[in-house]
Amino acid sequence: MNLSAFKKVTIIADDAMETYLIEEIKALGARGYTIEEAKGEGLHGASITDFQGRNIKIATIVSANTAEMILEMIKDKYLSQFSVIVYMSDVYVIRGERFM
Amino acid sequence: MNLSAFKKVTIIADDAMETYLIEEIKALGARGYTIEEAKGEGLHGASITDFQGRNIKIATIVSANTAEMILEMIKDKYLSQFSVIVYMSDVYVIRGERFM
Amino acid sequence: MNLSAFKKVTIIADDAMETYLIEEIKALGARGYTIEEAKGEGLHGASITDFQGRNIKIATIVSANTAEMILEMIKDKYLSQFSVIVYMSDVYVIRGERFM
Repeated sequence: MNLSAFKKVTIIADDAMETYLIEEIKALGARGYTIEEAKGEGLHGASITDFQGRNIKIATIVSANTAEMILEMIKDKYLSQFSVIVYMSDVYVIRGERFM
Repeated sequence: MNLSAFKKVTIIADDAMETYLIEEIKALGARGYTIEEAKGEGLHGASITDFQGRNIKIATIVSANTAEMILEMIKDKYLSQFSVIVYMSDVYVIRGERFM
Repeated sequence: MNLSAFKKVTIIADDAMETYLIEEIKALGARGYTIEEAKGEGLHGASITDFQGRNIKIATIVSANTAEMILEMIKDKYLSQFSVIVYMSDVYVIRGERFM
């Protein structure tokens, strides 16, 4: 079976940031995404903070290049000011051209 | 610690397909699964389409062989006709025999 | 871009176990976590069992060392007696010191 290696970028944030984050990742090349509700306790800057409100988990499968641009964007615009978690992982998909 | 390498297959689809997809993955050897609600914007065939309805995310941890069969099944039966996203990733579990 | 390799540990369990599991993973060094609702059919001991009640999926990003301790704890305290699924995967994060 012919699989292609892609990156999944996952962003956990306050639900108030949903519209902004979706616009940003689409502008950087994401062709699709899913949003799930989550709650949690997390990191704010260097220290732990409770964010017990409504949070969302956005996930998008993108090329390595787009993944890097999304991570840079989160780092530059969000990571110092907001309770945001972002991580990248490896995934394998069928018909990779659909994600580019 | 003795961990075993397995595959996680994740399928995102319209919630109307839940029963069919669960039957299919169990027939191919999946011994368990989780279902979560998700919303999103995604891919339909080669072009982008909005699927703003209720979607589900099905995840199952299986052997590499079962993972490949599930991916083939999704490709052959669903991928061209339905708004379905499927991807595979590597996971490590305790007591791998429980997943076989 | 400077990324750090970490482990994501995911635990799927009955929602009644939420408080205990969160306490355990924090005691072992987890600095944050997310909780999502899930339903599923799964594994109980060696045999398949339906757990159609309310389930939760807890995910935490931790060092390899903490990941191993969490897996050991789940194996020793929960895996034989409860319907629990646990798995580990590789993730890459920005500013890894926030997760240590």
